[in-house]
Amino acid sequence: MISLEQARAMDAADPLRACHERFVLPEGLIYLDGNSLGALPKAAIGRKREVIEREWGASLIRSWNDHGWIDAPQRVGARIAPLIGAKPHEVIVADSVSVNLFKLITAAAALSPERPVLLSERGNFHTDLHVASGAAELMPNLRLETVDRTRIDEALGPNTNLLLLTHVHYKSGDRFDMAAVTRRAKAAGAPTLWDLSHSVGAVPVDLNGAGAELAVGCGYKYLNGGPGAPAFLYVAEHLQERLIPYLRGWMGHAAPFAFTDDYQPAPGISRFLAGTPPMLSLLALESGVESFDGVGMDAIWAKSVALFDLFAALVEERCAGHGLECISPTDPEKRGSHISYRHPHAFEICQALIEAEVIGDFRAPDVVRFGLTPLYLGCEDIWTAVDRLVDILESGRWREPRFAVRGKVT
Amino acid sequence: MISLEQARAMDAADPLRACHERFVLPEGLIYLDGNSLGALPKAAIGRKREVIEREWGASLIRSWNDHGWIDAPQRVGARIAPLIGAKPHEVIVADSVSVNLFKLITAAAALSPERPVLLSERGNFHTDLHVASGAAELMPNLRLETVDRTRIDEALGPNTNLLLLTHVHYKSGDRFDMAAVTRRAKAAGAPTLWDLSHSVGAVPVDLNGAGAELAVGCGYKYLNGGPGAPAFLYVAEHLQERLIPYLRGWMGHAAPFAFTDDYQPAPGISRFLAGTPPMLSLLALESGVESFDGVGMDAIWAKSVALFDLFAALVEERCAGHGLECISPTDPEKRGSHISYRHPHAFEICQALIEAEVIGDFRAPDVVRFGLTPLYLGCEDIWTAVDRLVDILESGRWREPRFAVRGKVT
Repeated sequence: MISLEQARAMDAADPLRACHERFVLPEGLIYLDGNSLGALPKAAIGRKREVIEREWGASLIRSWNDHGWIDAPQRVGARIAPLIGAKPHEVIVADSVSVNLFKLITAAAALSPERPVLLSERGNFHTDLHVASGAAELMPNLRLETVDRTRIDEALGPNTNLLLLTHVHYKSGDRFDMAAVTRRAKAAGAPTLWDLSHSVGAVPVDLNGAGAELAVGCGYKYLNGGPGAPAFLYVAEHLQERLIPYLRGWMGHAAPFAFTDDYQPAPGISRFLAGTPPMLSLLALESGVESFDGVGMDAIWAKSVALFDLFAALVEERCAGHGLECISPTDPEKRGSHISYRHPHAFEICQALIEAEVIGDFRAPDVVRFGLTPLYLGCEDIWTAVDRLVDILESGRWREPRFAVRGKVT
Repeated sequence: MISLEQARAMDAADPLRACHERFVLPEGLIYLDGNSLGALPKAAIGRKREVIEREWGASLIRSWNDHGWIDAPQRVGARIAPLIGAKPHEVIVADSVSVNLFKLITAAAALSPERPVLLSERGNFHTDLHVASGAAELMPNLRLETVDRTRIDEALGPNTNLLLLTHVHYKSGDRFDMAAVTRRAKAAGAPTLWDLSHSVGAVPVDLNGAGAELAVGCGYKYLNGGPGAPAFLYVAEHLQERLIPYLRGWMGHAAPFAFTDDYQPAPGISRFLAGTPPMLSLLALESGVESFDGVGMDAIWAKSVALFDLFAALVEERCAGHGLECISPTDPEKRGSHISYRHPHAFEICQALIEAEVIGDFRAPDVVRFGLTPLYLGCEDIWTAVDRLVDILESGRWREPRFAVRGKVT
């Protein structure tokens, strides 16, 4: 049985141990939901004051030039690039994941109008499917088809227009082999659009190495960009000039301040901007991305693997017989950075854990999910979280009626 | 000749005089660009600290329920509604003006696919035209046609699918008669989509009174929501259930936390949400909208008219012979809340004014534009601004080469 002392010893040997000092984490709270909303980087507090009081308050409109607001989408994109194996000019921050998916699906679909099928995974994150359905309803020759994730390969063919997949599944944590899937889609003549929302900042991603054509990702999960932080999108260099966004706007125009009626896409990745970006949220994301400074993705992933394996081992040892079924892959190469359990009373268990200051989240209909954020969690946190879970299961406290009450966001 | 003392006397009699205390305004600066980026409301500073440190930092993911994040798009929309003559449940805050235009153009166009013409004004704000062109390229039966603003009426007809207009022109300040234009479009069988970016918060708008079907507007101009604040959109109650957004996402789903593959639009205005909103920017917008608390739109508009008339009179009196041509309407019913002048060296004059701490802006190719924000400008500010303009024109200082240097945002 793994002891608290052993967990502490692992932390003492952890090269990322000091990184949690970069974040605000409430005393006593074990936060296992950084894959839903990343923690607040301490640097964001001072930076935010500066942005509000000095840039907005004192410099006002001049900040677009004087404080680099106008370049922020490209600048923050370039800082995300090394985390996902992209070149700096292949990534830009803009809008939300949903809006960016729409931009890329519609632009990419136009490349091969004779191919009618937008292919995706049944049970993919639902916003991806909703966006895809809207794009398909709008484009006369496009239709959305979803298949089980095990049948993607056989569904690829001469009709495939675009393959839309989420790299790490939001619920199970299952991870696609990006290089292999991209290669097979390419062999079938279709580009792949990867949603990196549950990967970026925790899981190794090598878009260039995989030959990936398109990607989007979330700013407010492992990137710690703050609630609803803008998203990013990636377009491989060789495709940038071939894609013309249908969802467009003045910030993606070749000459936004010429105020001409005619649309001329900006060169390169900038054409995928639409309207004016939400600067306060975008600059908070910049602080979030800076929380990765000096930390390599290898070290982050090694830490993720250690946290997961410890969590899984402790639950196996200490929660046996309580009906928790791990649905996340045991093979690190096949998973992301969260661990999920199925249980008929997942909702109540999740609520009881929150009361016990262990924050994970519930995913309908029957999954409790724990995000393992390498930058600010340690093995002692994991040990304590499972210890509190054991207490809740053994005491049966989760059966108390208050834990069945649902909020708007559950 | 209007003296400084007279201007001060006007301010002493101004019922909105105290409102400027609600804003941070740098000492000595005359800020005539609140129609491009509104000033910082003092209340936003404390609120922002609370949002960052208490809500994001301490409550983390729980803030979606505990601090009302999940309802913020509807809540802030309902606070904007009385400023534009709408019902609270007809307005929602989301995305950018560009993205909201795209949502509404595509959804509305589908109502009458047999009508091929998306009609707009030549020289409309360019992002509106860019978005419209993208939507038209995507929809097989839709094409964009632009005509001079004086020819809108005659262009309306049985082919008109949707009329897309900006209520107050971003450059000239020309204002359409919303009720009359909406009525004529309706008579031709077409709904109107109004862009209120240069109206909301300064100019009287009565969407319900005009029978207007659709509108969008900007959060970062007169609403003082901060740089790139999210935008809002309006859909008349009777149309809400008939429009199905093509650009959609989980936040606009009937059951966002059921995580189902199938798209089911939320009831009412909420269906026009797409992805997760940028909460830091959205809550700053809430502070901006609150800066209108207790102030009626009548008083705001009366103040706008007084500021404009004073500006125009002073320039006429004191700048004659320097080549400034006012291109904004003298009739208050036909204009917005900014005053614009054409001059062959508008750019240099604008730059010299900025150095003299009078911030207006340049709009290509030859316009200098001054935003008149009723909440935080007084007649003394206008007097001083024109006084500095007189000095720049009489001294010819604007001819110095440094004033011809262009930044990225000009």
